[in-house]
Amino acid sequence: MTNSELAVRYSPHRRQEACGVIGVWAPGPQIADLCYLGLFSLQHRGQESAGIAITDGLHIEEVKGMGLMTEAFRERRPTMAGHAAIGHVRYSTQGASAYCNIQPLFAYAKNGFLSLAHNGTITNFDYLRASLEREGGIFRTTSDSEAILNLLAMSNGSGLEEHIVKVLNRVEGAYSLILMTSDRLIGVRDPQGYRPLCVGQIKPGQYVLASESCALDAVKATLIRDINPGEMAIVSHEGLSFRRFSQATRHSSCVFEYIYFARPDSVLDGQSVWGTRFRLGQQLAKEFDQSADIVIPVPDTGITAALGFSQASGLPYLEGLIKNRYVGRSFIMPQQISRESTVEMKLNPVRANLEGQRVVLIDDSIVRGTTSARIVSMVRRAGAKEVRMCVSSPPITQPCYYGIDTSIRRELIAAIKTVPQIKESLGVDSLHYLSKQGLLDQINDPENRRSCLACFD
Amino acid sequence: MTNSELAVRYSPHRRQEACGVIGVWAPGPQIADLCYLGLFSLQHRGQESAGIAITDGLHIEEVKGMGLMTEAFRERRPTMAGHAAIGHVRYSTQGASAYCNIQPLFAYAKNGFLSLAHNGTITNFDYLRASLEREGGIFRTTSDSEAILNLLAMSNGSGLEEHIVKVLNRVEGAYSLILMTSDRLIGVRDPQGYRPLCVGQIKPGQYVLASESCALDAVKATLIRDINPGEMAIVSHEGLSFRRFSQATRHSSCVFEYIYFARPDSVLDGQSVWGTRFRLGQQLAKEFDQSADIVIPVPDTGITAALGFSQASGLPYLEGLIKNRYVGRSFIMPQQISRESTVEMKLNPVRANLEGQRVVLIDDSIVRGTTSARIVSMVRRAGAKEVRMCVSSPPITQPCYYGIDTSIRRELIAAIKTVPQIKESLGVDSLHYLSKQGLLDQINDPENRRSCLACFD
Amino acid sequence: MTNSELAVRYSPHRRQEACGVIGVWAPGPQIADLCYLGLFSLQHRGQESAGIAITDGLHIEEVKGMGLMTEAFRERRPTMAGHAAIGHVRYSTQGASAYCNIQPLFAYAKNGFLSLAHNGTITNFDYLRASLEREGGIFRTTSDSEAILNLLAMSNGSGLEEHIVKVLNRVEGAYSLILMTSDRLIGVRDPQGYRPLCVGQIKPGQYVLASESCALDAVKATLIRDINPGEMAIVSHEGLSFRRFSQATRHSSCVFEYIYFARPDSVLDGQSVWGTRFRLGQQLAKEFDQSADIVIPVPDTGITAALGFSQASGLPYLEGLIKNRYVGRSFIMPQQISRESTVEMKLNPVRANLEGQRVVLIDDSIVRGTTSARIVSMVRRAGAKEVRMCVSSPPITQPCYYGIDTSIRRELIAAIKTVPQIKESLGVDSLHYLSKQGLLDQINDPENRRSCLACFD
Amino acid sequence: MTNSELAVRYSPHRRQEACGVIGVWAPGPQIADLCYLGLFSLQHRGQESAGIAITDGLHIEEVKGMGLMTEAFRERRPTMAGHAAIGHVRYSTQGASAYCNIQPLFAYAKNGFLSLAHNGTITNFDYLRASLEREGGIFRTTSDSEAILNLLAMSNGSGLEEHIVKVLNRVEGAYSLILMTSDRLIGVRDPQGYRPLCVGQIKPGQYVLASESCALDAVKATLIRDINPGEMAIVSHEGLSFRRFSQATRHSSCVFEYIYFARPDSVLDGQSVWGTRFRLGQQLAKEFDQSADIVIPVPDTGITAALGFSQASGLPYLEGLIKNRYVGRSFIMPQQISRESTVEMKLNPVRANLEGQRVVLIDDSIVRGTTSARIVSMVRRAGAKEVRMCVSSPPITQPCYYGIDTSIRRELIAAIKTVPQIKESLGVDSLHYLSKQGLLDQINDPENRRSCLACFD
Repeated sequence: MTNSELAVRYSPHRRQEACGVIGVWAPGPQIADLCYLGLFSLQHRGQESAGIAITDGLHIEEVKGMGLMTEAFRERRPTMAGHAAIGHVRYSTQGASAYCNIQPLFAYAKNGFLSLAHNGTITNFDYLRASLEREGGIFRTTSDSEAILNLLAMSNGSGLEEHIVKVLNRVEGAYSLILMTSDRLIGVRDPQGYRPLCVGQIKPGQYVLASESCALDAVKATLIRDINPGEMAIVSHEGLSFRRFSQATRHSSCVFEYIYFARPDSVLDGQSVWGTRFRLGQQLAKEFDQSADIVIPVPDTGITAALGFSQASGLPYLEGLIKNRYVGRSFIMPQQISRESTVEMKLNPVRANLEGQRVVLIDDSIVRGTTSARIVSMVRRAGAKEVRMCVSSPPITQPCYYGIDTSIRRELIAAIKTVPQIKESLGVDSLHYLSKQGLLDQINDPENRRSCLACFD
Repeated sequence: MTNSELAVRYSPHRRQEACGVIGVWAPGPQIADLCYLGLFSLQHRGQESAGIAITDGLHIEEVKGMGLMTEAFRERRPTMAGHAAIGHVRYSTQGASAYCNIQPLFAYAKNGFLSLAHNGTITNFDYLRASLEREGGIFRTTSDSEAILNLLAMSNGSGLEEHIVKVLNRVEGAYSLILMTSDRLIGVRDPQGYRPLCVGQIKPGQYVLASESCALDAVKATLIRDINPGEMAIVSHEGLSFRRFSQATRHSSCVFEYIYFARPDSVLDGQSVWGTRFRLGQQLAKEFDQSADIVIPVPDTGITAALGFSQASGLPYLEGLIKNRYVGRSFIMPQQISRESTVEMKLNPVRANLEGQRVVLIDDSIVRGTTSARIVSMVRRAGAKEVRMCVSSPPITQPCYYGIDTSIRRELIAAIKTVPQIKESLGVDSLHYLSKQGLLDQINDPENRRSCLACFD
Repeated sequence: MTNSELAVRYSPHRRQEACGVIGVWAPGPQIADLCYLGLFSLQHRGQESAGIAITDGLHIEEVKGMGLMTEAFRERRPTMAGHAAIGHVRYSTQGASAYCNIQPLFAYAKNGFLSLAHNGTITNFDYLRASLEREGGIFRTTSDSEAILNLLAMSNGSGLEEHIVKVLNRVEGAYSLILMTSDRLIGVRDPQGYRPLCVGQIKPGQYVLASESCALDAVKATLIRDINPGEMAIVSHEGLSFRRFSQATRHSSCVFEYIYFARPDSVLDGQSVWGTRFRLGQQLAKEFDQSADIVIPVPDTGITAALGFSQASGLPYLEGLIKNRYVGRSFIMPQQISRESTVEMKLNPVRANLEGQRVVLIDDSIVRGTTSARIVSMVRRAGAKEVRMCVSSPPITQPCYYGIDTSIRRELIAAIKTVPQIKESLGVDSLHYLSKQGLLDQINDPENRRSCLACFD
Repeated sequence: MTNSELAVRYSPHRRQEACGVIGVWAPGPQIADLCYLGLFSLQHRGQESAGIAITDGLHIEEVKGMGLMTEAFRERRPTMAGHAAIGHVRYSTQGASAYCNIQPLFAYAKNGFLSLAHNGTITNFDYLRASLEREGGIFRTTSDSEAILNLLAMSNGSGLEEHIVKVLNRVEGAYSLILMTSDRLIGVRDPQGYRPLCVGQIKPGQYVLASESCALDAVKATLIRDINPGEMAIVSHEGLSFRRFSQATRHSSCVFEYIYFARPDSVLDGQSVWGTRFRLGQQLAKEFDQSADIVIPVPDTGITAALGFSQASGLPYLEGLIKNRYVGRSFIMPQQISRESTVEMKLNPVRANLEGQRVVLIDDSIVRGTTSARIVSMVRRAGAKEVRMCVSSPPITQPCYYGIDTSIRRELIAAIKTVPQIKESLGVDSLHYLSKQGLLDQINDPENRRSCLACFD
């Protein structure tokens, strides 16, 4: 026998974080395992909680838990046979988190049950909630996703798809969402396409909707295509169909998916994440105007850009910092040791590679700058003669309102300091951010797809 | 770090089981502990799950879990300071049970939050739910109590109390419920008064609502009185007040509270449970027309009635069966042993007291009869010359629709067999049920309070 | 996957506590379950830890854990098929306890493996250990039982039984021990017979050794007889045989087995525990010289004696205190409540039975007196007019050196106060201990068996 | 409250596995944390179990558990203040494992207590154990390390160091061991120096003994030097001293420490592990006689050698396989999916980098060959035109008797197949092992240090 626990302090709701979502349509006994494997490939998108819901049209099995999937499903894994399943992993950098918020969210409503997995942020949530409460709606979580359930329950429409279109017209913000009913699996991407969502085929009659293409690989599905901004994909016993519900005003996909968030083996909106990251490193090398001896990445986030930088600059790429793979979520730094952070346990220098060298240190971004400062100091203590920091994205000057949690503005070092001041803080010999134009040149494609650069403005 | 888990198979909802509820109004840091202790005294009313919610008007802390309170709150106990708290323990004899159903149920609605603890069964739940869903309501649990949350969210009323009255007019069935809002604690008892609910005072300005008076003792509160059928008690910063919302059509409190369910140290509707149980034993002795040597109870349920029987009959009371106190919820009978039940591990005879004796065996009720048959056989193997079974309640011929889970009709031995047939099944020398009139004589009081006898009809 | 933990602070060893031991010889697949059930019936003898070891002659499966059996075996239960098994539950009232000390203790030694379950205290342990260490022995636990393993490994003898006899000649103190080798199960009782040990038969060729006869009942075995002081019982594929290894100098069985420790349904050395306890109550009534209205027991320990008291005195027996069955090992009293103990949560008065009454309160013994004082005060608050405390054993003035942990002398109220002073402390109207002669008259039998009364001297 | 469990099936003992050991001498309250952090840096040397023992001369605190350190110490972490501590992590590729075997092993013996952490294999264990048992020794684990405890307890010597020397003269095999007594911390390395062991200084009077220098970095200690083969290092309140106990017959350090086992940021016997691995890659490139387009490593084990290969060959280094960092010990592949292994979940190809390329795939070694075959097939499915496998060590043809568990001979692909047959099995276009001479050229140093190459012969 095991023990479950729910512990919540309800407090003013907070923004929906970045997450990973998956939906699988594959009638048979293996539906639970397919959903599990696909979701496991999206684990990097969220480690705070995980959930899976399966339906055979009549019953729903829902298993949820806090933590990594191996923790959340330790005591119980979904096993029911059915035709459809959806899964969700949630990411949060904030302390507070609530069991009741674990997705997929479930509700019985007038047309049967709904199960929802949502990646994004509803920006008019406060307005929607107030108006839904006036109409008699109840909210049992602090998640903005619950507003969508209430909207679907409260509004009317002739047929599910019409109905959803009507509801989405009231929702503002960023969302890639997957909705499961008794006989339908529906993937929706907001009109700006902030967050990714793609669809693939396992075999005829079996489909997968997922945040990233790496989840398709995990279930041996072939990528059909990304869902377009303002489009929905509908999977049922009759197969897969698409439907546009809004004119894409302006494609604004989040550049941080390419810079940091997505897995390098994924292809988003037609672009290889690895390839993009490598090109950003090459571009950074072109913009770099200093001399140096070696290039070393901050593992793991700076590795691919550092390889691009090395290729474009001709400087040799070496491993200068080794990561302790066991320092994870559950590692707790002892209290009695007078040390401020876990950085020194996570990374350890390879002195033989750094001693006497002029080092270019590559990372993908700088948020608060505290970790970077520590790493620079570690590299210096290991004997580096010079440390030049190169960052494969522009300075982040604005928090994100669309789902990547870059917290509040005053924690962003580039929001409160100039580049020379940051250089000073980090203790580097020089500091080089990728230019905004350099980023755009490498990210935007000829077909006029655009990226959201709000956090750099 | 701990792990939480939610695992649900949603399926057609089932009746609300018997439960224990408590509400405490005691502003200060000790509110969590008072609620915990009071609820602990009601643990006998439910061992399937437990939950506590506390509010300081702005925040709500909610901690819930499966199992006994020591299990449900093992990893986390409620601790928040506040002015009010409610708690709930749930009982179920059925296998299925769901994390999402653990009470108190919580919701944000148009007038702020609501937290609900419910003991009883809403008999028109299917109708209410269908009509609420039509109006746009969503149901996220399989519990009938959620209908009350939706009713409160959907209907309108000038002021909370009017509002509740309006809602209760639509609800049919048995309910003792406690509702917590940001500034109010409200206890309500249905117009028939099926399930108990009383109110006590800790000190001026501090009140407790609870299923049984033993919970008042646990927090050193003094019993003020039982809430009347069709009445509500309102506690706020202004103190305690009562309000009648319905004319009591007919008081019909459940006799099984006296026979079996409540703790013997509780006083319900003015009657000592211990005293009632003792009188039922005396009455049973009066109706018993056989000769015998000794009286022995089936522990623990038959002890008090057996003492009454002994007193009235003059036959000596002895312990003939010893209970192994460690055979509880978590004891699992080994599979490889060819034994059909855990009765032999729970009870063991005192051979010295039984050998050669003509034994009167007292129990409070017979449901399926399987356990009784096993006990009788155990008493015979220990050397009893004669076994006469005496039951301190009439034969249960109908399942209960108001909250005590006596399961489906075909499992009730008295629903499908005559008394002589039951005597045969149990293997006793004679079988004596308390007469319905005998029960009424001992339970009903001069003030015309009536009991629900539906399960004996 | 589960997590195991070993956490020890090795510190000067402490006395062996009272425990329950079992050995089963029953070749087949059900050996694990038989041992489990038998041990479960001895759970009252120890709740700190539990362990079972099984052998098929070649392999040994050993499963151990802290806590009640349901906790210790929650994650894993013994399952191996074999011909013999031994089990042990350990009792401790002291805080410190160590994983490595959980019995059965296991060792490979020159003649194959040994597995040992021990109930008792080796009084010359310090001497034995020092001399064994000088000979090269290592001690990996803080348990005195490990000395027996080392003695067996270090000494020589022609044949196992000779060998054991030789070893026992060096051991002083109280012990009932069960030893398992690859082909033998041996039960030994020390020459004074301080602790109980009996043997029963399941069917031809299947035997059980156990601390109490209730464990035989649990596996449907028939009691053959108690092992005599200074005797060993040997079970092998050739059946059961007995061998005397010492002249019983003086039978000195512990009276607390009868007064408190053993289960009432057990028969020890030919005497029913229930019957003895009942007679002690009768004797107490004879010695009681006051008038009163009712007799109430302190549950559960005083129940049987109170029934005897009631029978002999003619005063009616009532339940005046109700025990909350859920307040167990894992109940933790909230910190913020200004209350000194858990007594008020464990027991609650039945006011209707106590109000205005002159009450005789029966308990089996008084150790520190703090709990008794609290109970007396509770009974008075519930309205009792007079409280007269009657104790079915003499004052305990000495700590026990033979296994019942009555702690250190200064904690024993009767060691530091006179009876009038204790009466004062408890706040009773009168206080009556059973006389030592009264105890002896009821316990000793005509065949000259004697009891150890060291703790009353 | 937590639950501990011990579950063992004792069966014929098995070889001591490779492990990580640490000893810290640093009087004060932070001793527990220093030992914890140092041991955490050795987590890659063992994930099966972990343990730490601390002493203040009088008391010992020992905390042990199964699994990773975050699991083993989840419920309890060592905290005692003291002057010395030792720690151990154990590695095993075999299923069976026993709680009682978790190190450090502890015993009280004639000269006080001993606590032992051992990395290595005692090859004459069977002989030692039989002879120790004859002398009266008892074995309570199945670990060969326990023989050392018994030897120390049984033999005599004038002073601890003499004593240890005498004991080690009877022990054959590979061992790096750390021994803690009440006032001494002793590190010993066998006369061949199979397994590494070094010593560093935190500050004057504070020393660390550890398997690898990366553990010194974790506690901010400076490497003093490696302990020489046949030498012991003694730490006490008087400081650090060394003592040779055997003439080093022939230094034979295990090459797999460099090839695979040690962390790349460690320096062993004066050589940087990263540097050695990089040179092996360079040497491999020199021996490679084919043309190709790109070099890709099997992550993480092939990365450093692949960088060396790229540098020496001029072929570009790309990431072609992305590792899912969440597929760890606790990931369990679903049963219903018709897939044979977890390789496809662990690694996913970057199609953009592989499509149409002639790929050199670098790994550090091939054991059974099954994983390699799967990876090759994955690379081909992702579009590679050619796959040439290069291995930075020679074929492993013999299991290891000194502590690295390469299992039994018939599982080693190179023990039963020729290189052309292996090439066939893996499905590669060509297969290149590093030559034995090439390995020796890069590993052995001018000072005549030699390596153990037994597994390649």
